[in-house]
Amino acid sequence: MKIGIADTTFARIDLGKVAEETIKANCCEAKIVRYTVPGIKDLPVTCKKLIEEENCDIVIAIGMPGKKPIDKQCAHEASLGIIIAQLMTNKHIIEVFVHEDEAENDKELKEIAFDRTKKHCINAINLVKGFNLSKFAGGGLRQGGKNAEKIYL
Amino acid sequence: MKIGIADTTFARIDLGKVAEETIKANCCEAKIVRYTVPGIKDLPVTCKKLIEEENCDIVIAIGMPGKKPIDKQCAHEASLGIIIAQLMTNKHIIEVFVHEDEAENDKELKEIAFDRTKKHCINAINLVKGFNLSKFAGGGLRQGGKNAEKIYL
Amino acid sequence: MKIGIADTTFARIDLGKVAEETIKANCCEAKIVRYTVPGIKDLPVTCKKLIEEENCDIVIAIGMPGKKPIDKQCAHEASLGIIIAQLMTNKHIIEVFVHEDEAENDKELKEIAFDRTKKHCINAINLVKGFNLSKFAGGGLRQGGKNAEKIYL
Amino acid sequence: MKIGIADTTFARIDLGKVAEETIKANCCEAKIVRYTVPGIKDLPVTCKKLIEEENCDIVIAIGMPGKKPIDKQCAHEASLGIIIAQLMTNKHIIEVFVHEDEAENDKELKEIAFDRTKKHCINAINLVKGFNLSKFAGGGLRQGGKNAEKIYL
Amino acid sequence: MKIGIADTTFARIDLGKVAEETIKANCCEAKIVRYTVPGIKDLPVTCKKLIEEENCDIVIAIGMPGKKPIDKQCAHEASLGIIIAQLMTNKHIIEVFVHEDEAENDKELKEIAFDRTKKHCINAINLVKGFNLSKFAGGGLRQGGKNAEKIYL
Repeated sequence: MKIGIADTTFARIDLGKVAEETIKANCCEAKIVRYTVPGIKDLPVTCKKLIEEENCDIVIAIGMPGKKPIDKQCAHEASLGIIIAQLMTNKHIIEVFVHEDEAENDKELKEIAFDRTKKHCINAINLVKGFNLSKFAGGGLRQGGKNAEKIYL
Repeated sequence: MKIGIADTTFARIDLGKVAEETIKANCCEAKIVRYTVPGIKDLPVTCKKLIEEENCDIVIAIGMPGKKPIDKQCAHEASLGIIIAQLMTNKHIIEVFVHEDEAENDKELKEIAFDRTKKHCINAINLVKGFNLSKFAGGGLRQGGKNAEKIYL
Repeated sequence: MKIGIADTTFARIDLGKVAEETIKANCCEAKIVRYTVPGIKDLPVTCKKLIEEENCDIVIAIGMPGKKPIDKQCAHEASLGIIIAQLMTNKHIIEVFVHEDEAENDKELKEIAFDRTKKHCINAINLVKGFNLSKFAGGGLRQGGKNAEKIYL
Repeated sequence: MKIGIADTTFARIDLGKVAEETIKANCCEAKIVRYTVPGIKDLPVTCKKLIEEENCDIVIAIGMPGKKPIDKQCAHEASLGIIIAQLMTNKHIIEVFVHEDEAENDKELKEIAFDRTKKHCINAINLVKGFNLSKFAGGGLRQGGKNAEKIYL
Repeated sequence: MKIGIADTTFARIDLGKVAEETIKANCCEAKIVRYTVPGIKDLPVTCKKLIEEENCDIVIAIGMPGKKPIDKQCAHEASLGIIIAQLMTNKHIIEVFVHEDEAENDKELKEIAFDRTKKHCINAINLVKGFNLSKFAGGGLRQGGKNAEKIYL
């Protein structure tokens, strides 16, 4: 099993390292390939290269968009690219984007970022192992904060 | 006949289960393959995998976008991806998105979600069976609430 | 010659029927294949299926987006999908979208819808017959209302 | 050398004719294929057909979006389609869109439209002839009005 | 090693030249192919042609969007096209867009533009040489201004 990590030098936290450690701790048999690029708009092709050239079974794409409108637009463009990359490869790419304006301060930003990165690494491991997530379907699960309230059938 | 159900752990209601039960009750000969992923942006490739790897004839893609602007944007990106997935496979993917801000409270949200999910499951069954929907064309049919008023020719 | 008509049960007027009648009256040699789906986001793949599976030479895609922002967004997504479907097939798909908020009341909405549908059916017939539209180029032609004023060279 | 011109009957000025005349006057050896369609959203596939079915080496895509928000959105969708058509064919498509709200009145609109069309025809001729435009790089060149001020290195 | 530079005549600064000089000074073994086109929406296919027809290993795409809303929209469309071009070729295209409204005056605009162009040329050289950027991951690196503050693990 091979898991790709695509991250950026634009981000303010080394979340790629957090992802690496989380995967190692929870899926010791996985090989990890990490590929760092300048910004989030470089992520789509990076993920595709990790899948097609490095034979990764799944990729975690990590980015930290800034606060400006242009940053939001870049994140939107990157997200669309990541969706298309998945459609071209039939592989999952788990997007871990942490928006700078989600937090009031750096401490909170770090908490959100760590929580989201770690939980999505577990998601990626489960998906690539074929673990059935349907038992958590509709569970209101959130990454980067506490879960939403589940509404029971 | 094989019907795929793609849903998320982000959603607050287990609508995948509602879809499963609706299909079983209305199309007992259909095989169902369910595939749950973390969020709506994971749905496009999931639907494509259900079609290409699991040989589903049609897929129902269920998501519950939250109230924040970023949630709206994710839904938009997912919808575009679902449209592209259909164009790449020549198969229908019936999108069942229930936006959290469509309802005043959880009770109403559940009613909308159940109605939309059930009606769209029937739509999917009709489409995959080749049932001619033209008799309902221009009927103002709505999923998630009462129909709009038909304007007669 | 084979002309496809893709329309929806969401629409409030049976414009697919109007299109059928217009084509029959103006191009009696054309075979017509009609395919009705739930909503406008189902149209792109429907048009592609009409072209690739039913061998239609051209398709008329009819939808009636509602008044809500989400309806506008769905129309935008559908339009992009219809453009991509054309690029994938090298066939024209004539989009006939009638937005509910174009009119003050149902009577006016019906007038707009009929005018747009009929005129675009003639456009489709001309395109598929290879009739040269350049004599009308820059003519300010409108479907759904009166033409704009032409500015002469 | 073969140059395609794709234009619309929606436009209020016959800019396709202006393009034809400009190309004839500046590149007498070029064969011209003109293809007129109803609206700007029909342009992407028209350009692709001109390239793939008529063997055009380059296409000029001319449209005149109206003033309404929906017109703006159509122009956006058409532009994306034109970009994708280029990526699918590896040929340039020079977009000449003149927005009705660029001008205060019809006289000004015509001036903008003529200037933009003519200059972009010259651009197209230069591109298809392999003429090196780098000598004008960063020159602040504008089509449809006077150039922006160049900032020197 | 072959590096492509795609730039425009619309830009107000000859940043293509700045890029050429930066690459020559920092990667003397690289062959450079420069391709100048009218505007930013011409960049996606230009980059793809540089990769597929000129065998460039990486491309730097330089544009200077103006201040108007339509310029912003063009930049958005170009960015999406550049992302798709990368996905179609599995090569990086480093986008260097300098928005006119990022600066208060031309002097500042030039400073931002030079800094961004030079830094991204170094990024491109590093990527194409396979230099591991992970040591800078999460470093808050910015092009066009000073870096953001890194948040340590």
